[in-house]
Amino acid sequence: MSSDTFLASKRMSDEARAQLAVHPEKFTMLSGDRPTGRLHMGHYFGTIIERVKLQDMGVPSLILVADYQVITDRDNTEHIADNVHNMVIDYLACGIDPEKTIIFNHSAVPALNQLMLPFLSLVTEAELLRNPTVKSEQEASGHALTGLLLTYPVHQACDILFCKGTIVPVGKDQLPHIEQTRQIARRFNEHYGQVFPEPVGLLTDAVEIPGLDGRKMSKSYGNAIALSATAEETAKLIKKSQTDSERFITFDKENRPGVSALLTTAALTTGRREEDIAAEIGNDGAGALKRYVTESVNGYLAPIRERRAELEQKPEFIREVLHEGNRRANAIADATLQEVREAMGMVY
Amino acid sequence: MSSDTFLASKRMSDEARAQLAVHPEKFTMLSGDRPTGRLHMGHYFGTIIERVKLQDMGVPSLILVADYQVITDRDNTEHIADNVHNMVIDYLACGIDPEKTIIFNHSAVPALNQLMLPFLSLVTEAELLRNPTVKSEQEASGHALTGLLLTYPVHQACDILFCKGTIVPVGKDQLPHIEQTRQIARRFNEHYGQVFPEPVGLLTDAVEIPGLDGRKMSKSYGNAIALSATAEETAKLIKKSQTDSERFITFDKENRPGVSALLTTAALTTGRREEDIAAEIGNDGAGALKRYVTESVNGYLAPIRERRAELEQKPEFIREVLHEGNRRANAIADATLQEVREAMGMVY
Repeated sequence: MSSDTFLASKRMSDEARAQLAVHPEKFTMLSGDRPTGRLHMGHYFGTIIERVKLQDMGVPSLILVADYQVITDRDNTEHIADNVHNMVIDYLACGIDPEKTIIFNHSAVPALNQLMLPFLSLVTEAELLRNPTVKSEQEASGHALTGLLLTYPVHQACDILFCKGTIVPVGKDQLPHIEQTRQIARRFNEHYGQVFPEPVGLLTDAVEIPGLDGRKMSKSYGNAIALSATAEETAKLIKKSQTDSERFITFDKENRPGVSALLTTAALTTGRREEDIAAEIGNDGAGALKRYVTESVNGYLAPIRERRAELEQKPEFIREVLHEGNRRANAIADATLQEVREAMGMVY
Repeated sequence: MSSDTFLASKRMSDEARAQLAVHPEKFTMLSGDRPTGRLHMGHYFGTIIERVKLQDMGVPSLILVADYQVITDRDNTEHIADNVHNMVIDYLACGIDPEKTIIFNHSAVPALNQLMLPFLSLVTEAELLRNPTVKSEQEASGHALTGLLLTYPVHQACDILFCKGTIVPVGKDQLPHIEQTRQIARRFNEHYGQVFPEPVGLLTDAVEIPGLDGRKMSKSYGNAIALSATAEETAKLIKKSQTDSERFITFDKENRPGVSALLTTAALTTGRREEDIAAEIGNDGAGALKRYVTESVNGYLAPIRERRAELEQKPEFIREVLHEGNRRANAIADATLQEVREAMGMVY
């Protein structure tokens, strides 16, 4: 993405933020996650807090549990029902309110998925291959590019446009997807008449929480603190995280990734500055830092985990939330698909 | 396609034909057309007769009016509602019985289209690009390969497998599509458990009716006699068809494509041999041949055109046929999609 394109995206994001403050009800927020495991603090600070904030501001909101995207880079759907169930629990425990936010499944909304066909006609193979996420996920997967991964930007357009989503909270690296969705919306409207808005990627200003080793937090790196972990599991994970041989604690991301990741984790969960925490611990060393981080994280997550434990006792309610979300998403998708058919002249 | 693969396909086709004679009810036939214009005699002799035969033998049958496929190689859907309406009229006039055969639209069956997502995960980009129809349509279209054309073999798999189609009447050139559908069915079953049959391409032994100039009959070549043309339009089209300067009529496809195409057209519509017709006309020349062909074709098509004219007076009935077909196709697609969700563990 060129810096010009980035600046244009940034400007649209800023404009949307300004408008959101005045007329939240005029927007529709779409976001989602792949149900490949439990949500962790990276998801929480990266996107969940933002979603809860937008929801509570009064922005009509939808969260997609993107179950088909599980098979973009793996060839099975092991544990998927359990992952989906727990993802809904995680959302609700974090403050997503199913009265305000529609939580739904990709596989439950056929009319959404049907949009694939008209949308696929609006992009070229070359454009699909140019998408950086397709490229990087392809390289990471280590096997031949599947049709599903190749068409990933088009699924994402379907996910965003079926509900006429206007804002999608994103990190900088996801902007090219939003750009492709905007392009598909624009081309559809040009060919068949105005149906879709062009969504804006709402750039988050969240501080990224690093994994315990300083790398990106990811379950596959073993450096992620799951929201669903117990206080003991959390303590154990933090205890075995790698620091360095220097006793005196300082905040230095580049040279001391382990120590600095712990400091940022403590900072985010206490609202303090990394440097202040480092100064306070000083010569007490990594052991003391780890105890402090453990306490901060477990304290911060305690109310979420408490709600989580309560929700785990109500599997029927969780299923009900998802069924109701799917019902509402289907009603929206059916209405949009009907508009698409009318625009394309496919009403017989 | 290697000759080994062709022989294997031919063997499967022959076995299916033998079984069809005994247990037609054990098969499900799926076929379809793109509603880009009126059906012509090429369609009629190439596939419609075969479909009517299978239907009347008692084979459960479905015919897809593939409206989304209109945009695989063009960027608009002009006249599509009119084309769809007239295609249904053409089918019924030719003997397709809506009580026995489900006639339905691609765009009307979301659960069918949703199969795209799991199926796309089972093929690689390289496999899609290797499909000869994708290649040739791409070359013919003269513009960049769209996502829709690239994924064409997967749509076709959805079309055939949503109803667990077991036989698909095809020409030799369509066998690679059937092979790709078989592969998708096989891979799905291997990954997630047995859901889909592997369909067989039922090779037609129909004589191909050439266009009036000896090339393949195609509306775009202006060499096609539409079933819906009037007797006068038919006469005019045959009259202006190009023959050659030799008066004496002989059947010689290679050296006399125009004259020979007229002879084959006369042969198919009278049940006589080309050579016999040629000998009979002999020195009376191309003018006499054309009059004979015009009479034969108009005579042959008269009952179809009569039914067509009646059906044109009943637009409500035609719509009803399509709506009922769509309703039945949706019921089948919903049931299959539910099986797919269960096989993939996507029931929440």
